Amino acid sequence: MKKSALAAVATVACASAFHLAPAQAQFAKAEDAVKYRQSTMFLMNNHMGRLGAMARGAVPFDAAAAQSSARLVESLSHLAWEAYTPNSVTDRSRAKPEIWQDAAKFKKAIESAMAETQKLPAAVATLDGLKAQVGAVGRNCKACHDDFRKD
Amino acid sequence: MKKSALAAVATVACASAFHLAPAQAQFAKAEDAVKYRQSTMFLMNNHMGRLGAMARGAVPFDAAAAQSSARLVESLSHLAWEAYTPNSVTDRSRAKPEIWQDAAKFKKAIESAMAETQKLPAAVATLDGLKAQVGAVGRNCKACHDDFRKD
Repeated sequence: MKKSALAAVATVACASAFHLAPAQAQFAKAEDAVKYRQSTMFLMNNHMGRLGAMARGAVPFDAAAAQSSARLVESLSHLAWEAYTPNSVTDRSRAKPEIWQDAAKFKKAIESAMAETQKLPAAVATLDGLKAQVGAVGRNCKACHDDFRKD
Repeated sequence: MKKSALAAVATVACASAFHLAPAQAQFAKAEDAVKYRQSTMFLMNNHMGRLGAMARGAVPFDAAAAQSSARLVESLSHLAWEAYTPNSVTDRSRAKPEIWQDAAKFKKAIESAMAETQKLPAAVATLDGLKAQVGAVGRNCKACHDDFRKD
């Protein structure tokens, strides 16, 4: 606990010295940033998997469960990006250097993905809507992973 | 990918055979359940940390950022519990056996924590409200960790 508290204080001090955005100041170490985005991605993947199972008929369509997963995916889809802090690559990270080398392309991919996740909560009210929008979100996930994530 | 798809199919088959709740069927392996709850806890801890920094004056009070973190903590606080599936203890898990041995006490602790996280989004509209409610949520976090998480 003491170490965490010290790290937090150090982060705040750095943010103030270098005028970083407060969000970036949350990640004192590369490991923290990697764990933050991996936690986000893991939960998104789990809930996209639940929606996907309904889309392909592996489990029955459940409007309330779909709504809950859709809202969660939408919320989580805003989180990971702030954690792609400069040089936050570790042995556990599959982030490609292109994320930082072609920041404009990465930003565009993120914006495209978020535009689709925003439509998800409304779309999953019906099974047909769920199928279409889970497909649209999934294509954005895949396109970004193809360009910016190591195999 | 093939392995994941097979695991998903196997899970659905098991759920149908044993009448498990659909949520429990998400976790084919103990590792998945552990990773799911650790991802949830990591993100909650990060955002409680951001609120805590405002509470103690380490960063300036920012109503919009506080609202965003509060809503996220509230949403995430509903997630982890379904992942305490039977026997989901691994080398990476700090879950104590008491979670399953004293399920009624664990359930009560969860319900108490969620009752407090639900008040968080409204409370953080003011710095005084934030301080009080972050304290209340934090005390619930700690009480549950003391009883049910290994050091």
